[in-house]
Amino acid sequence: MNTRLDTGKEMLKQVNGQAADDVMKSLRDIAPDVGKFILEFAFGDIYSRSGLDLKQRELVTITSLLTQGDTEGQLKVHIQGSLHVGLTEKQIIEAFIQCLPYVGFPKVLNAIAVAKDIFAQNKN
Amino acid sequence: MNTRLDTGKEMLKQVNGQAADDVMKSLRDIAPDVGKFILEFAFGDIYSRSGLDLKQRELVTITSLLTQGDTEGQLKVHIQGSLHVGLTEKQIIEAFIQCLPYVGFPKVLNAIAVAKDIFAQNKN
Amino acid sequence: MNTRLDTGKEMLKQVNGQAADDVMKSLRDIAPDVGKFILEFAFGDIYSRSGLDLKQRELVTITSLLTQGDTEGQLKVHIQGSLHVGLTEKQIIEAFIQCLPYVGFPKVLNAIAVAKDIFAQNKN
Amino acid sequence: MNTRLDTGKEMLKQVNGQAADDVMKSLRDIAPDVGKFILEFAFGDIYSRSGLDLKQRELVTITSLLTQGDTEGQLKVHIQGSLHVGLTEKQIIEAFIQCLPYVGFPKVLNAIAVAKDIFAQNKN
Amino acid sequence: MNTRLDTGKEMLKQVNGQAADDVMKSLRDIAPDVGKFILEFAFGDIYSRSGLDLKQRELVTITSLLTQGDTEGQLKVHIQGSLHVGLTEKQIIEAFIQCLPYVGFPKVLNAIAVAKDIFAQNKN
Amino acid sequence: MNTRLDTGKEMLKQVNGQAADDVMKSLRDIAPDVGKFILEFAFGDIYSRSGLDLKQRELVTITSLLTQGDTEGQLKVHIQGSLHVGLTEKQIIEAFIQCLPYVGFPKVLNAIAVAKDIFAQNKN
Repeated sequence: MNTRLDTGKEMLKQVNGQAADDVMKSLRDIAPDVGKFILEFAFGDIYSRSGLDLKQRELVTITSLLTQGDTEGQLKVHIQGSLHVGLTEKQIIEAFIQCLPYVGFPKVLNAIAVAKDIFAQNKN
Repeated sequence: MNTRLDTGKEMLKQVNGQAADDVMKSLRDIAPDVGKFILEFAFGDIYSRSGLDLKQRELVTITSLLTQGDTEGQLKVHIQGSLHVGLTEKQIIEAFIQCLPYVGFPKVLNAIAVAKDIFAQNKN
Repeated sequence: MNTRLDTGKEMLKQVNGQAADDVMKSLRDIAPDVGKFILEFAFGDIYSRSGLDLKQRELVTITSLLTQGDTEGQLKVHIQGSLHVGLTEKQIIEAFIQCLPYVGFPKVLNAIAVAKDIFAQNKN
Repeated sequence: MNTRLDTGKEMLKQVNGQAADDVMKSLRDIAPDVGKFILEFAFGDIYSRSGLDLKQRELVTITSLLTQGDTEGQLKVHIQGSLHVGLTEKQIIEAFIQCLPYVGFPKVLNAIAVAKDIFAQNKN
Repeated sequence: MNTRLDTGKEMLKQVNGQAADDVMKSLRDIAPDVGKFILEFAFGDIYSRSGLDLKQRELVTITSLLTQGDTEGQLKVHIQGSLHVGLTEKQIIEAFIQCLPYVGFPKVLNAIAVAKDIFAQNKN
Repeated sequence: MNTRLDTGKEMLKQVNGQAADDVMKSLRDIAPDVGKFILEFAFGDIYSRSGLDLKQRELVTITSLLTQGDTEGQLKVHIQGSLHVGLTEKQIIEAFIQCLPYVGFPKVLNAIAVAKDIFAQNKN
């Protein structure tokens, strides 16, 4: 029994099950172990920890993605995930605005543009 | 009456009053307007907004500082600030651990080293 | 009367009026306050300062955008803005070349590709 | 006789001749000197040095490109170049996986996506 | 039996046993799980993989650390580790020089300064 | 006759002769070719170009160094160099302030702290 893998699958489903499947599928032929590490390490070891709830973990995640830049694909997954664990659209945008004094406008505008697409998609 | 400046001073005091004084003092002779922008824009315009509480705002802030790197001085201010607005030591470390899958070990180890110093100082 | 907002609108018009309208429009429904901060803080507080002229400010801006990477959208706005305040195409490319020893080829090639598009568009 | 230019052309051909022509062509009208610096400095001065072989140099190059982010175009050139100098598909992916503990998942996933495209193209 | 932890300890000893002990000790009171993740994930899961040998893995590692910047502490560990797995001083410097066209001079000079200290220490 | 090396030495002397000597000395035993590349490529090929004057080139340089972070040593050299080619203290600080909307406060505060040291040193 692989507890870390099981835990990871369960956690990832709680955050963003659809994206999970897509990422795993895209890695299958080229780097399946990276998919396994995402499940076992990122979701099995880290997301499952106590100390912060899933809303706080997604707040940290989208902030880190916004700050490092060049993460459009991952931001899509985790903005959707943020909504899925219970953050509101307003809170997500507010987290991006809180980054303004620390990273300036360009990265915040990039992240807002991704959020705008996700929010619009969800309305259809 | 300069409402933004007053609001900024009030917000900064809530986050980390001591650091505020130090930063302002260090900017006084060389770039006093930057001190004013920190108060008016970062704290007057942004921290005072609704939508996220101060604990969430500091969670976003320390994550952004960890992620961009080369921010030891600012991390000191905002780890102290995070404690001041009510985050626990455990939550701060947990936020850093949540960054592991997104930025890797080096930046997380850097931030933990800063937190270790701050936590130790607070015990004396 | 909101002097900062008025000043910001005036400054942004001097730099790149068309882009300004587009950015504001794209932010209107999702994060209008970010548009307000761009006008009041970036353009009202910063661009309007003395000490450097608009050509020097745009030189600084495009250099910062090139260096941080993942800023194609903003580079478009400010390469156009650089031309608008009086920098020549040659000076813009020369600023990018000056970055070579400090950031290496990839980011410089990225910025040149954006400039190439803008310069070509302007010829039509 | 321009030895550096000749050496650079020869080295670049060994790494990725096709891409070389494309990059030079795209720079011709806008910044031809940057093309010359790529040949003379990057390939003439650096790639031609002893101390590391071309496989090791490409390993370093794709790692640096992955790590800095926003380098899709350059990664394409140098993943192709890595194969051309004798690294295997497996070794390239393995180098990306080795970056996981140092940069986290997002940048590694970005680089894998680029490699996937290149590997697929080569099969057609 | 925790195979990943055992494997990680064994791999880390092969790379840099002394540094390993120091890092674990510094994490013990504040974030012991991060030490465990370094052993289990970075060294147990990743370094132990086939496909690249330890010299190639350290080449990738020091390149990634140089490129991201603000990693002096980690560079010390892995420059020492690079020597320990069999890279020569000349090869390490050569890897840094290979980064010049991709990241520019400042980060390369930073990494050379760290290497200089490590090489000198080893001579005493 | 090595024109590029001679030109580079001459340009570097115009920007910051003292720092030049120090950097070359520190590289002499470990990576002398990097010193040669700084002279030949950075100063011989790039700084000597027409299109921008030395004040504009230093403006670009300090902006790029501020923006990428972890460049304290290089910022010292080029803040001194900026003064040497004729930029005023006020213009240097103003360039840093112009970066605020693009990179946020932390990197600007770091650069101001370096400038403060250099300006104070020059007064003694």
